[in-house]
Amino acid sequence: MRKAIIFTIILLGISAFINSLANIAKANLIPEKEVLMDGLKHPWSIAFLSEHDALVSEKDGDLVRVNLKTKQKTVIKGFPNDLARKITINSSAYEFGIYPTSLDGRTGSFNMGIFDVVLDPNFSKNKFVYVAYVAQKKDTFTTKVVRAKLENNVLKNVRAIFVAEPFTPGVWHFGGGMTFGKDGKLYITIGERLFNEINQPPLPIAQNLRDKRGKIHRINSDGTIPKDNPDFGVGTIKSMYAVGIRAAQGLTVEPKTGKIWFTEHGTNQGDEINLLKPGANYGWAVKTTGTYRYKNYNPPKLPDRVFTDPVWFWRQTVAPTGLTFYTGDEFPEWKNNLFVSGLSRGSFWRVRIEGETVKSLEELFVDSRVRSRKVAQSPEGKLYLLTDEDNGKIIRIRRNK
Amino acid sequence: MRKAIIFTIILLGISAFINSLANIAKANLIPEKEVLMDGLKHPWSIAFLSEHDALVSEKDGDLVRVNLKTKQKTVIKGFPNDLARKITINSSAYEFGIYPTSLDGRTGSFNMGIFDVVLDPNFSKNKFVYVAYVAQKKDTFTTKVVRAKLENNVLKNVRAIFVAEPFTPGVWHFGGGMTFGKDGKLYITIGERLFNEINQPPLPIAQNLRDKRGKIHRINSDGTIPKDNPDFGVGTIKSMYAVGIRAAQGLTVEPKTGKIWFTEHGTNQGDEINLLKPGANYGWAVKTTGTYRYKNYNPPKLPDRVFTDPVWFWRQTVAPTGLTFYTGDEFPEWKNNLFVSGLSRGSFWRVRIEGETVKSLEELFVDSRVRSRKVAQSPEGKLYLLTDEDNGKIIRIRRNK
Repeated sequence: MRKAIIFTIILLGISAFINSLANIAKANLIPEKEVLMDGLKHPWSIAFLSEHDALVSEKDGDLVRVNLKTKQKTVIKGFPNDLARKITINSSAYEFGIYPTSLDGRTGSFNMGIFDVVLDPNFSKNKFVYVAYVAQKKDTFTTKVVRAKLENNVLKNVRAIFVAEPFTPGVWHFGGGMTFGKDGKLYITIGERLFNEINQPPLPIAQNLRDKRGKIHRINSDGTIPKDNPDFGVGTIKSMYAVGIRAAQGLTVEPKTGKIWFTEHGTNQGDEINLLKPGANYGWAVKTTGTYRYKNYNPPKLPDRVFTDPVWFWRQTVAPTGLTFYTGDEFPEWKNNLFVSGLSRGSFWRVRIEGETVKSLEELFVDSRVRSRKVAQSPEGKLYLLTDEDNGKIIRIRRNK
Repeated sequence: MRKAIIFTIILLGISAFINSLANIAKANLIPEKEVLMDGLKHPWSIAFLSEHDALVSEKDGDLVRVNLKTKQKTVIKGFPNDLARKITINSSAYEFGIYPTSLDGRTGSFNMGIFDVVLDPNFSKNKFVYVAYVAQKKDTFTTKVVRAKLENNVLKNVRAIFVAEPFTPGVWHFGGGMTFGKDGKLYITIGERLFNEINQPPLPIAQNLRDKRGKIHRINSDGTIPKDNPDFGVGTIKSMYAVGIRAAQGLTVEPKTGKIWFTEHGTNQGDEINLLKPGANYGWAVKTTGTYRYKNYNPPKLPDRVFTDPVWFWRQTVAPTGLTFYTGDEFPEWKNNLFVSGLSRGSFWRVRIEGETVKSLEELFVDSRVRSRKVAQSPEGKLYLLTDEDNGKIIRIRRNK
């Protein structure tokens, strides 16, 4: 008996010693990129069905299902046919002052296409998936969210649960980020759709409480309005949760706290990380941490509004996109850090937050920049990056061996 | 005998197990600041005599000796009396076009005072210390380096070993960073002394190979010129090691490789991390990674010059200063990283370098910024930060307990 105890202790000791050596070795390990898949058409988001099986929304392509092991890619059928794909800019739209005349006749997808894809919190039972995309009505567009049942790689019972009217000819800043809060509600970012602030109406769009654009919305998963949404007053949009937002794409839940964080694009600089608070007004276009594209733009004062500052803003252009909190075990020193990818210069940021304060920011892979749309974590805690390219990639961020 | 072996293994095991737990715990530990001393007059640099005993150069004060345990501070006597301290700006200097007329009659130390202090590689035997400071001759100034013997807190046998003539009325960009290379030679940064590039002569100062300003120099510790300095041609300054440098302060040896790295201030942005190479030309004022203060400044082309790019440049203003490679054990994950402090916005950067490539940069303590002049490491590997304030501090960067 005593021998057995001694033997156990020795084994424990040896194992701990090896573990200890491994930990010391780990301290000097560094992150590296491993391309798991390519050939994706500007992938925007990823929703994991299991560790290796995921739905990927291609901005310029389809909703697809990928297997990260076999590299198989299957197009999900049944996608709504009002999806705006490649379009030719119609110069009649200039009367809306929405984009520069230099784009006349240009063909492209611009900011349009398929955006976020998320699973229902109860997906294993109800098989509901939610997709945000740009819907087209003649020569006008807006962001639409549909809910559908995923059955044998087909979207069934597709139902629009949110449409960010009005439809306009603008081709920018649709938002389209989504996340389920810990409260089971669906949060949706909707951009204000203008490219330049000079085209703002007298009451800037994002400050107009009767306009769905430039807002973050909160709805029930069936499209109805939660009773406990913040009250913006009589005649205002009831799905609004926060306002004064220029162009937010990513938003994510902080697992430790349940708080929701979102990124926002500024004009020149002014890219931000924000903490989502009910009823908050983030200031655009009246107040910005960047500078206006048109130096002479003179926003109205709106003295009755109280503005919420961002938690962080960059002094350089980042164009931050889909973000996620890391909770995996592969990089213990990164636990609970926020990761943010960027379109501009392909930046990839690690942000250490304490409470509601940013303590430090690390820009990783500055020698291998790639325009990136989304950071995501797999169910087992692996960290992935989606690149915004014609030949879009799913990259695993792993420890250097 | 066998019992003793088993007992040893058990002990080893237990100790390794505890160590292992400690390492896992460490992964979540974070850096924090501990103010060890204050009351220093804009400390510029620190030279450790032992773990707790150090010389500190106060830009706006004295060369002092501090004990980090007892907090005692002793002024070192015998400092050269041509030290430029507080001065009143003399408007006659405007003819040199060196500073804006708005400074007329202003009193201050500006960029002047005491800069770097370093010990001789053989200090334990010869007691030689090297100090860079601004020497004054009537209303003109330049950077001077003296060597002296430190005896009972007095500088003895003070001897000028380098003077960056000419003396001019300019009050900016003296350089004054120093380090001994692994080759035993003393490397010195000298700024180009102009505040605005609009005041450049037809051949920009830093490109003038017959002018000591805007260069990094390499001398023997007695002030003589090493025979193996790069050859810039007939009639050029023989102490020059690299040229085309606007305003470099810090330079440091990478312990692993012996390479020397230096920081450089741009005008608007263009702050850089450079790798020092013999005979290299870093481009100023012909080429810059920032923008000129005067948009209309039109530098000469100098087509015969080959320019060396920085290893890194920031897109925002940092004003990087004294830097050091970290080799301590307190933060194993930071081993061999470069640390850079900044004057602008009090930034504090951790830079991971592989070979000659920057892989990532982390800005730490973004919620507790303090204008900082120098990062240094103690003999036992502790990390220190010197703040550039009237009430200047020595801050230890330590693991949060």
